[in-house]
Amino acid sequence: MRFVKGHGTENDFVILPDLDGALDLTPDLVAAICDRRAGIGADGVLRVVRSKALGRDGDPEWFMDYRNADGGVAEMCGNGVRVFARYLVEAGLAAPGDLRIATRGGMRVARLGAAGDVTVDMGAPKILGNSRATVSGRVYEGLGVSMGNPHLACAISEPVSGLDLTRAPEVDAGFFPEGVNVELFRPAGQGRVEMRVHERGSGETRSCGTGAVATAVAAAHAEGRTEGTWEVAVLGGVVTVTLDGETSFLSGPAVLVAEGELHLG
Amino acid sequence: MRFVKGHGTENDFVILPDLDGALDLTPDLVAAICDRRAGIGADGVLRVVRSKALGRDGDPEWFMDYRNADGGVAEMCGNGVRVFARYLVEAGLAAPGDLRIATRGGMRVARLGAAGDVTVDMGAPKILGNSRATVSGRVYEGLGVSMGNPHLACAISEPVSGLDLTRAPEVDAGFFPEGVNVELFRPAGQGRVEMRVHERGSGETRSCGTGAVATAVAAAHAEGRTEGTWEVAVLGGVVTVTLDGETSFLSGPAVLVAEGELHLG
Repeated sequence: MRFVKGHGTENDFVILPDLDGALDLTPDLVAAICDRRAGIGADGVLRVVRSKALGRDGDPEWFMDYRNADGGVAEMCGNGVRVFARYLVEAGLAAPGDLRIATRGGMRVARLGAAGDVTVDMGAPKILGNSRATVSGRVYEGLGVSMGNPHLACAISEPVSGLDLTRAPEVDAGFFPEGVNVELFRPAGQGRVEMRVHERGSGETRSCGTGAVATAVAAAHAEGRTEGTWEVAVLGGVVTVTLDGETSFLSGPAVLVAEGELHLG
Repeated sequence: MRFVKGHGTENDFVILPDLDGALDLTPDLVAAICDRRAGIGADGVLRVVRSKALGRDGDPEWFMDYRNADGGVAEMCGNGVRVFARYLVEAGLAAPGDLRIATRGGMRVARLGAAGDVTVDMGAPKILGNSRATVSGRVYEGLGVSMGNPHLACAISEPVSGLDLTRAPEVDAGFFPEGVNVELFRPAGQGRVEMRVHERGSGETRSCGTGAVATAVAAAHAEGRTEGTWEVAVLGGVVTVTLDGETSFLSGPAVLVAEGELHLG
């Protein structure tokens, strides 16, 4: 089984080229591949498959079959789309420029920049209203934002480096019945914010694409704006979010670090 | 840069074949390779290099250049030698049978078994005497054992699954001036023990070869013996330790899971 390993701001993936959909990618196999000691290790698997091979005839040519590290199917992953797009171009499966990618969360458009960054249209953010999270006994006010998945982005005034996110933040289960990803961010001036994120089901992660967009939306909202560009510094690097009042764009590095043959499964 | 990923009871390594010693393996490059999100990820790197290429003319043909994940040079690693031996045979660089491997800790002999297991002669254990460790407020009596590196192996009566090893055990710094690896083990009858280990500098790990041998030595010592065979169940699997009154042997699985090309450094 051929594989490629890559990451976007340290959100990492094993890419499995399975162009004609011949691979039987069971949850057990995904979990074995993503095991960080007995396998290759990753936050998830990106299977690269032709939409036609899956009977998705009206879709763009390439379908991103995204799986979480535990083997479960997931709809979309912003950093995953960026790494997926990088792979398509490096493998010669798509030309640089605007790439249309089919996902379970709908079609996404990605563009490779000259500096190695990849930008993806993340769709329209939807503001859910105000709510709050309790982290290590402290209560933070925040803005609920849906990016397909639910977020609560809370502005804080202290450095994010001092936060303890080892435990899940306590949130309003009535407001977020399916759980919520919680971002804590500190505005650092000049359109720059520092952010840390606790993802439901995963704990703290080094980067979260939809969380970065939700954070930019909350930062804009606090200034009474719906447009603008924010640099969001996460533990795994820096991404840039652009809001145009309608949709949102996520830009950042997408790197392929290794390729080879897997002997699992 | 070619690489292979493998593990022994989930103690995992990136193997770098550098037969003629051409690679400039800096600490930064080792750390980048071992980074579990931005690199491949491993507990350490095993560079495979001819002893002659390093000017070690009297040594066995192959030298195991072992580096810790942080980039530092280390002397020896029991699980590492077993994975290294598996690689030499699979790559056709050595014939099955007794393999002599040069390490910074001296020459080691490894043997591949028919069932995929690899046995390595770990050398003579040296008993250091009695000491104690405090874990989560509880004091455990144990036996100090040197396997080249220092260990304190403590028999306990409760299941090892209930232990909390997130913090380093408190030990007698006068007895162990260079720190110590602490094993807590529960005799489970019929020559079988369950063990967990806290490695100095690394925290709890899923397996530790020298720690498994130290545990078998302490289990034997408690019965007034210096010979025998112990099955040691660790978090990452099961290894077998044989003591013959002089030296010690560590047996267990050694698996290669992937191979390919790295684009780092």
